[in-house]
Amino acid sequence: MVPSEIRALFAMVARPEVVSLAGGAPFVSALPLDAVGAMIGDLVAGKGAEVLQYGSAQGDETLREHICEVMALEGVQASADDVVVTVGAQQALDLITKIFIDPGDVILAEAPSYVGALGTFAAYQADVVHVPLDEGGLIPSALRETLDRLRREGRRVKFLYTVPTFQNPAGVTLTPARRAQILEICAEYDVLIVEDNPYGLLGFDGEPMRALRADEAERVIYLGSFSKTIASGLRVGWVLAPHAVRAKLVLAAESAILCPSNFSQLAVREYLATQPWREQIKDFRELYRARRDAILASLDQLMPDGCSWTRPAGGFFVWLTLPEGLDSKAMAPRAIADRVAYVPGTGFYADGGGHRHMRLSYCFPEPHRIREGVRRLAAVVEQEIKLRDTFGGAARCGSTGVHTPGPDVV
Amino acid sequence: MVPSEIRALFAMVARPEVVSLAGGAPFVSALPLDAVGAMIGDLVAGKGAEVLQYGSAQGDETLREHICEVMALEGVQASADDVVVTVGAQQALDLITKIFIDPGDVILAEAPSYVGALGTFAAYQADVVHVPLDEGGLIPSALRETLDRLRREGRRVKFLYTVPTFQNPAGVTLTPARRAQILEICAEYDVLIVEDNPYGLLGFDGEPMRALRADEAERVIYLGSFSKTIASGLRVGWVLAPHAVRAKLVLAAESAILCPSNFSQLAVREYLATQPWREQIKDFRELYRARRDAILASLDQLMPDGCSWTRPAGGFFVWLTLPEGLDSKAMAPRAIADRVAYVPGTGFYADGGGHRHMRLSYCFPEPHRIREGVRRLAAVVEQEIKLRDTFGGAARCGSTGVHTPGPDVV
Repeated sequence: MVPSEIRALFAMVARPEVVSLAGGAPFVSALPLDAVGAMIGDLVAGKGAEVLQYGSAQGDETLREHICEVMALEGVQASADDVVVTVGAQQALDLITKIFIDPGDVILAEAPSYVGALGTFAAYQADVVHVPLDEGGLIPSALRETLDRLRREGRRVKFLYTVPTFQNPAGVTLTPARRAQILEICAEYDVLIVEDNPYGLLGFDGEPMRALRADEAERVIYLGSFSKTIASGLRVGWVLAPHAVRAKLVLAAESAILCPSNFSQLAVREYLATQPWREQIKDFRELYRARRDAILASLDQLMPDGCSWTRPAGGFFVWLTLPEGLDSKAMAPRAIADRVAYVPGTGFYADGGGHRHMRLSYCFPEPHRIREGVRRLAAVVEQEIKLRDTFGGAARCGSTGVHTPGPDVV
Repeated sequence: MVPSEIRALFAMVARPEVVSLAGGAPFVSALPLDAVGAMIGDLVAGKGAEVLQYGSAQGDETLREHICEVMALEGVQASADDVVVTVGAQQALDLITKIFIDPGDVILAEAPSYVGALGTFAAYQADVVHVPLDEGGLIPSALRETLDRLRREGRRVKFLYTVPTFQNPAGVTLTPARRAQILEICAEYDVLIVEDNPYGLLGFDGEPMRALRADEAERVIYLGSFSKTIASGLRVGWVLAPHAVRAKLVLAAESAILCPSNFSQLAVREYLATQPWREQIKDFRELYRARRDAILASLDQLMPDGCSWTRPAGGFFVWLTLPEGLDSKAMAPRAIADRVAYVPGTGFYADGGGHRHMRLSYCFPEPHRIREGVRRLAAVVEQEIKLRDTFGGAARCGSTGVHTPGPDVV
């Protein structure tokens, strides 16, 4: 098992004097807490015998039907019978990896990729091979080249793990044209796709993107979550899988946790049945859009020459590239000392890459705090550039792979 | 991965015309649901920003302190820092097995043993070796003989898994004298102990039994749960482990689920801080004692000669042995047809044993339903005895190991 950076990030987020652009915690205070509290109180008082009891390993059936309605917003047609409710999408990742991966098997993942997935893949001793992305998401030609190379090497590719929409950490979105190409290539090379889509409904422009799963039911395992559209503390996610995989997932879930919490599940079921959840997601979108605007405006205004960053159309994250010779991991302790936190890019690579990158989250802090955070960050980067120009290159942090930043960074 | 019988049991419990003596669901309706609902509603309305947010992988610190107070009732002295909150004790079992077991490693377990543990052990390809128990719990001399034999065979024993108090499924309790002997033997043979103790506070006579962990901190990993003392639907359990193991458990938990639900955890924290939980456990004890009395009185009165059963001093279960030549698994469909359900003993053995046994749960049905269930069961057994006497032995169900009863049984 390999440590991840997430644990350390929770600690960063908690320090009030630090502007944290690190953790990906949703702004749950935007929920109507009085109404949600009253709803849950009534639910427990009225249906306690069900809410407080064991449930099935697959998850509550009515909730699974609601989940299908949610996925339909992204073009996904699915049966509740093929959905398994999980403890956040993280448990879905864990169960899928447990089912498919033997030590040494190859998982393809974007470069960069979600740190929590890389941690799980490492725990099962998968060999993660990265495929580059750009502003249009995963690059199809690079995917094909990678598959060709691995085929020549006789390596077994178990699946492609991708966050196609408002990617974590890069904030980019796979274009519709590329979606078709990725599906085509994966069919040609007979590779499963694990589509992780926690941010799909949090786009700032127009209608939700069409999920990969919407156009390919047999080859795509779809992971969803209510962590960002309702509340992360409920730990309710799900996986939609082809029938044979679904059956294995239920057995694996039962072995791992017996059953997911009815308390959490039925809170979500009741919320979806009685509360204006579509309007609430719209409110979240507006809130996060204002924060996205704040971070992009601040970066445009304040960051020194030589930095570049992505311009997300949804979700929580901006991916920033530092000028050559700077190292985001080596710089992190100095940033924390100057009261701004980010996640060094190295956490999002399984192969030691990412030193020139960082993930900036705009989901949690208020816009004025985001601006203050970027101001502090810009000053730190300027100082680093001066050091580089004086001493000919900042010290590079030697560690590679998935790792914890350590107490000095926190 | 291997199916288990639990999933099928949930379905049995749901059919109103069947008296289910099968599932181990606690009688959560005995909770003051109005008060608990109001408490949770206020909690979400007042502290929603924390309740609905991600938490730490190890679990809420204040809750872990409360957990130490709960364990102190069984003589356990522990630091909150050595506790990891899990999704029920089942997740603790899964994480421990993941950490310690390589395929083929030996786990010792009582004969019979908890079906959910056997399922998890099978998922990691452990080799479960059973050690017999009697009315006084696990038999120390049998443990020593088994360890001697395995040592001679050069087998590696990773741990002893035991439910020492009000055992599932046998309903028996390890005597104080045997506790000392078991600890001594495990020290002599350098074997870890996994003490699974969900029922410890649900004893019907006198003070709680002293946990194994109370007298041995380094060799015992202790699993606890609020599923039976508060509510199973919350899915809040825990593991108390020596420090080095605890660190690995936190990493494994993070990889598996990121963090346990704050929603569930803080509901438990608030319940323990503000509600009369000791009095509620006393109420549960009285309730389950009345049901235990009902099932024992009915069995004494109604069951035909040749049957025997344990007399639990706490917990949820009676373990019944059928007359020679009868098979609880083969008989199960006939019992269901006559509207009474139990769990065939075979689910509690990893080695194909248990055909003459069954688990009877008295935790969920009201006493008059328990009596009706035993009446139906006694009639089925009498019929089986007649069949045996006429045809010279009931058909034996051929399957072995951990398995699902199949749709005919459900």
